[in-house]
Amino acid sequence: MTNGVKHMKWWGWGVEGIGFHHEDKPNFAPFVLDKVGLDLSHAPDKPPSFDEIEVPASRLSDELKSTLVDLLGEKFVVTEDLDRIVHTFGKSVRDLIRMRRNQLKRIPDAVLYPADEDQVRAIVDAIVAADAVLIPFGGGSNIVGSLEPRAWEDRIVVSVDLGRMNRVVEIDDEAGLARIQAGALGPALEEQLNRRGWTMGHFPDSFTHSTLGGWIATRSSGMQSDEYGDIADITRGVRVVQPGRTLVLRPLPSTSTGPSVREMILGSEGRLGIITEATVQVHRLPDERVILAYFFPDWPTGLKAMAAVSKSEAEVIVARCSDDRETAFSFSTQKKQKGVKKYVTEAVFKVLERRGWDLSKLCMSFIGFEGSKEHVKRNKELVKQIVQAHGGMVVGKGPGVLYDQKKFDTPYLRDFLLDRGAAADVSETSAPYSKLQGLYDNTIAAAENAMAEVDCRGYIMCHLSHNYHSGACLYFTFAIADMSDDVLAKYDHVKRAIQQSFIDNDGTLSHHHGVGREHAPWMSQDISPAGEQMIRDLIQAVDPGDNLNPGVIVHDGKPGITVMSADHVDERDTSA
Amino acid sequence: MTNGVKHMKWWGWGVEGIGFHHEDKPNFAPFVLDKVGLDLSHAPDKPPSFDEIEVPASRLSDELKSTLVDLLGEKFVVTEDLDRIVHTFGKSVRDLIRMRRNQLKRIPDAVLYPADEDQVRAIVDAIVAADAVLIPFGGGSNIVGSLEPRAWEDRIVVSVDLGRMNRVVEIDDEAGLARIQAGALGPALEEQLNRRGWTMGHFPDSFTHSTLGGWIATRSSGMQSDEYGDIADITRGVRVVQPGRTLVLRPLPSTSTGPSVREMILGSEGRLGIITEATVQVHRLPDERVILAYFFPDWPTGLKAMAAVSKSEAEVIVARCSDDRETAFSFSTQKKQKGVKKYVTEAVFKVLERRGWDLSKLCMSFIGFEGSKEHVKRNKELVKQIVQAHGGMVVGKGPGVLYDQKKFDTPYLRDFLLDRGAAADVSETSAPYSKLQGLYDNTIAAAENAMAEVDCRGYIMCHLSHNYHSGACLYFTFAIADMSDDVLAKYDHVKRAIQQSFIDNDGTLSHHHGVGREHAPWMSQDISPAGEQMIRDLIQAVDPGDNLNPGVIVHDGKPGITVMSADHVDERDTSA
Repeated sequence: MTNGVKHMKWWGWGVEGIGFHHEDKPNFAPFVLDKVGLDLSHAPDKPPSFDEIEVPASRLSDELKSTLVDLLGEKFVVTEDLDRIVHTFGKSVRDLIRMRRNQLKRIPDAVLYPADEDQVRAIVDAIVAADAVLIPFGGGSNIVGSLEPRAWEDRIVVSVDLGRMNRVVEIDDEAGLARIQAGALGPALEEQLNRRGWTMGHFPDSFTHSTLGGWIATRSSGMQSDEYGDIADITRGVRVVQPGRTLVLRPLPSTSTGPSVREMILGSEGRLGIITEATVQVHRLPDERVILAYFFPDWPTGLKAMAAVSKSEAEVIVARCSDDRETAFSFSTQKKQKGVKKYVTEAVFKVLERRGWDLSKLCMSFIGFEGSKEHVKRNKELVKQIVQAHGGMVVGKGPGVLYDQKKFDTPYLRDFLLDRGAAADVSETSAPYSKLQGLYDNTIAAAENAMAEVDCRGYIMCHLSHNYHSGACLYFTFAIADMSDDVLAKYDHVKRAIQQSFIDNDGTLSHHHGVGREHAPWMSQDISPAGEQMIRDLIQAVDPGDNLNPGVIVHDGKPGITVMSADHVDERDTSA
Repeated sequence: MTNGVKHMKWWGWGVEGIGFHHEDKPNFAPFVLDKVGLDLSHAPDKPPSFDEIEVPASRLSDELKSTLVDLLGEKFVVTEDLDRIVHTFGKSVRDLIRMRRNQLKRIPDAVLYPADEDQVRAIVDAIVAADAVLIPFGGGSNIVGSLEPRAWEDRIVVSVDLGRMNRVVEIDDEAGLARIQAGALGPALEEQLNRRGWTMGHFPDSFTHSTLGGWIATRSSGMQSDEYGDIADITRGVRVVQPGRTLVLRPLPSTSTGPSVREMILGSEGRLGIITEATVQVHRLPDERVILAYFFPDWPTGLKAMAAVSKSEAEVIVARCSDDRETAFSFSTQKKQKGVKKYVTEAVFKVLERRGWDLSKLCMSFIGFEGSKEHVKRNKELVKQIVQAHGGMVVGKGPGVLYDQKKFDTPYLRDFLLDRGAAADVSETSAPYSKLQGLYDNTIAAAENAMAEVDCRGYIMCHLSHNYHSGACLYFTFAIADMSDDVLAKYDHVKRAIQQSFIDNDGTLSHHHGVGREHAPWMSQDISPAGEQMIRDLIQAVDPGDNLNPGVIVHDGKPGITVMSADHVDERDTSA
């Protein structure tokens, strides 16, 4: 990797030297022991060693290699093992476990690093001409299996890494629009925008290791999307290289020109071409920004309060509320408190107990505000009234500041737990407000039942975030304390119960993570068989040769597919 | 029409007994005489007589008729002349002129009135089995040629009128969602919602004579869309009957399930099936509602002020500003003022002149507010500051009340002018704020140049409305004083110049009227040839037999098509 493009570590989230640790969090080990029976005092597994990975040999033909080298230069057609391994998976727990266990089937035969759209065009045409397979790659943070080649793929597979295309090309100050190359990572593009007084306002959990192109290709949401909109709202124009042509959608505030092609590209996960750049809405950096913490006596009350905030005249950038389970987890990750802070915390809890709150049901909420001082002040007041009308309590800035600082570090926890014998991941959905409580209750029950069925101790917790007029997202995090040979089958069993519960309780199979291979089996249940067929036909028309990331979004129904099936756990990896 | 479904008059907008008149508007006749040389003191043409219309005979086969009667009952398979004529066109000036001039080529052979989705399904399957053509019909207010059969169509053509499917089926009070049948007209659905304390907040100019299904099928916007969103935002779930299947999209606040099928149905103008119902966002009726008028010294200032309001922290339901031309037109339609009112008006103008304003450049703006008293008060104040910072002036409530009352009557003006020798219609676009001034200047110049080229006196005027983060809609109204045999060719010449100017100046070919046959020739310029091909392929996959409203959205390239071409005026109606 001498071409300047940096990647996450091959075996886990983020960069070397950063990780979750619990030595300064006295309540964490007892919490984990209590909830899933995992003893954190045991020494963790050593980090995986790359030497132990059996890397399948590259199948790149001399002929295609020579064509690609002519197009990009030798340095940008990479067949080294580490590059190919880094581009094999995303970072779901399924990906991480398979990597740690050396369960590699089909990995890319080469990684290409185009410098500009012309090179992307040349790559697409060369790949299609050679009847090879092409998988676009942004930051590699995907957790739904959108990046891996099909296990049985016998054509040449290349990963096209957009990492060199990372510039903010121009900013239209009057309109508030920025043209940005698709390979720009979150921090890189925000830094370029901030320098000129702008922000895109898009901050998904994966922000530090995901790109504009990846956000568009998966219909990403950010933690401030209540104010700035999801990526679908933010993206106004887009350019996409397709076999033999380039799709150009100019930046328009709104248009009435038939079925929305822009909304076909959003969420297309590489199947309709390679997104090379987008023109996105940008906003002036706010004068003030504050995130406040609130307590609610229980989860049903927290849910109702979030809906009330969303339906009120208050403007917030984020409104989220953790259930009692996630609140307890959060408390377990707090650093040891001393002096005044400790005293204040204890005093608050005493007040709540005097009010008759059952502290084991306590729910923590964060609500954020941005804008002029006056705007922030007024909206804080409006929210305070709603919170108090629901019997909630304003806690203040402290936890909010902490949340704001730590918000991008959560994914490191997955690796920490894997080192210590637990598999954790996330599933999220959205549904109308009227359905959230039922969906939540049934999903918790379905997950716990599934854990019992596979004889695992486990934990599942949830928060509400991303509010819309008619509903919100519920975001579940779950873990099973198991590192047996069967862990993936067990994990699948639980994950499948959760996804099916989403569908059965009027939710969608994903609010913002995308479809990939993991969720593809539920597509016809979510958007009906007719909807799935429309997507299938659209893809088929753009990519008749099945060269563009085949197998994601719509299940291709071949045996041995390395994804979960809605019906058969055994179908996974049967191509082995 | 004995089946209870009411329609607009066959020869013009709206209902009998309502129309534009100028007897109480002393400045109107002089304005029209001055601007386009039309003398309104001449007696107008008599209303067209249905007896003079040569109605082509129905080609409905006995076999298909018998099938349809079995499905729907005799009363709901109508082949009477008046029904078929009413369902031939929308209400564009092109439609009205052709109707008045008896220029009918291919009209529907029957009008079907299904009672429910099962009947719609039966109709679609029967029509496809018979290889006939099906055109869905809502309120018939379309002005881009989405409703007429192709002139050369030699298959049987039926119009499917959704007028009997007009109920609000259920309201989810907790989520703020209402399930409504697609054939419900604006007033009918608002009345049903209002009764339970809700509003959909969607008020297009065509409100009184357009339906929910029509709004979705054309990507409609309402005059309060700044607050309530366009129909694309409002529509959460939808059901669509397609050949051999029914597409079901459940109501979701947001989802990340690949290319958006919901956004494929939006704007599909009947080409992807018949929309039978939708689940839409509804809002509690506001405590207070006020629309205020403002003056700006000139159009560039008005444009800048609208952008500033949109980018500010002020929340408004509508912000529109007329150019000096439309402002002058508005003043010409005012009723005679007397007493105090007259005095106040004159005093205001004197103040402005003392301030150095050139009153011929004056621009009038309306900005609306809804919500709690406190919310309305605060936002009025925020807007006032922005208006004053731009050198504008708060006029007050009077003109706003008038605008609010008259807002749905504008389309009657088209018939009034046709009776008196002028052809008037509208073209609208949207573009980034940074492009609006240039787009405006070049479009006015292009239209005036085109009018000169066809030796017509004419007038064009414009307002800005529908604000988004990055841009807004510009809405042009234009008229040519011509009723010669060539009027449609002349109108086409001007309309074509305007549409081409939109595209050439970074605008879209339509912000909310749709594509139909009129705008289809520009689709590849707007969304690029690749985008047009994606829509074409999608339609082809859903409707391989070309039975669903063929010819709209994507130009089918056959000779003699009765639409404008981007290149050849002569191509129009050559099938005659």
